[in-house]
Amino acid sequence: MKEFICNPVEIEKESMAIIGEILGEVDFTPKELKVVKRVIHTTADFEYAQLLEFNHAPLEALWQAIRDGRHLVTDTGMAMSGINRRVLSKYGAEVKCFMSQEEVALEAKERGLTRAMVSMEHAVKDERNGIYVIGNAPTALMQLLELIEKGQAAPAVIIGVPVGFVGAAESKERLGQTAIPHILIRGRKGGSNVAASIVNAISYMLEE
Amino acid sequence: MKEFICNPVEIEKESMAIIGEILGEVDFTPKELKVVKRVIHTTADFEYAQLLEFNHAPLEALWQAIRDGRHLVTDTGMAMSGINRRVLSKYGAEVKCFMSQEEVALEAKERGLTRAMVSMEHAVKDERNGIYVIGNAPTALMQLLELIEKGQAAPAVIIGVPVGFVGAAESKERLGQTAIPHILIRGRKGGSNVAASIVNAISYMLEE
Repeated sequence: MKEFICNPVEIEKESMAIIGEILGEVDFTPKELKVVKRVIHTTADFEYAQLLEFNHAPLEALWQAIRDGRHLVTDTGMAMSGINRRVLSKYGAEVKCFMSQEEVALEAKERGLTRAMVSMEHAVKDERNGIYVIGNAPTALMQLLELIEKGQAAPAVIIGVPVGFVGAAESKERLGQTAIPHILIRGRKGGSNVAASIVNAISYMLEE
Repeated sequence: MKEFICNPVEIEKESMAIIGEILGEVDFTPKELKVVKRVIHTTADFEYAQLLEFNHAPLEALWQAIRDGRHLVTDTGMAMSGINRRVLSKYGAEVKCFMSQEEVALEAKERGLTRAMVSMEHAVKDERNGIYVIGNAPTALMQLLELIEKGQAAPAVIIGVPVGFVGAAESKERLGQTAIPHILIRGRKGGSNVAASIVNAISYMLEE
């Protein structure tokens, strides 16, 4: 065990150095690159450097939304659990997930929708919920985009990285067509862990 | 939205069919294949079919441990949050994570270890903790293996899939040399979401 690095700060520093070396030259701003590297740190999957897209200044929009005291909404307990509250809590930004609420489950069953869709409908009722973090359910992202089109939602920023084989790529393509600041991952890849790591990378930069 | 599949059971069925088609012929038992497919369902990353290893009948060991009323220990709140309790709770199996305990943080700081290492030391004190699910910290897996060598831990099964660039591959190589039933992912890949999906795939089979 002795030969192992046991200092978490050292482990992360060394990891990021290795990732940077393997990545080489990439077409991101230095701040975007921090997000890309943290996603790779979380997944060990370098394909994310080809798939991540930052549209309409999403980092700046997320920082502003946090400063404005807006809250985060996730589509899974896992994403919620992976988001580091240390910085967010300083600004009063809460992290919410409506997925496990009993009324959401009941309503979804009654209406033949996914819980993820109904959870978005519940989330947009409160305008303070301004940062949408979707890592799992394409139907959550599709529903959110519908609500925006109908004028029933006005997020400050969307982290749209649902993973999957049914509707995921399409939902993210549609996100790519909006003018709302967003980060997306093209194709099937993504996930709750990826969504959380993107939020963490951006919120950590608020402290630098 | 109309053209979207909104039934979660249908979405999963369709997803698994697509994954099976892309995977084609692979060298797993039908039950192992269910685990492999669920990991790909969670990550959209087909490389996992090349990296997953099942050694010493881990599925049977995990089912037996659950029937024996042994508990699960994870190395992150995210993995804990991603594990579906529906089946597990029927057998009285709890899911625990010691990472966020204040005494663990304090002790780690004092001794110059990672919280993940100290959390494993705390977990093994209770012999009912028999299913170790490590998706994030190589140091947790290394520490657990050390405790086993010293005769201070006797897990029924280990899901050893920490992700990372410092020590992850090495910790899993070392796991591969033990006689304890385990599942591992060779190389750098893995993660809390992957760990949870492995446990879920196996626990769901208890109900079939």
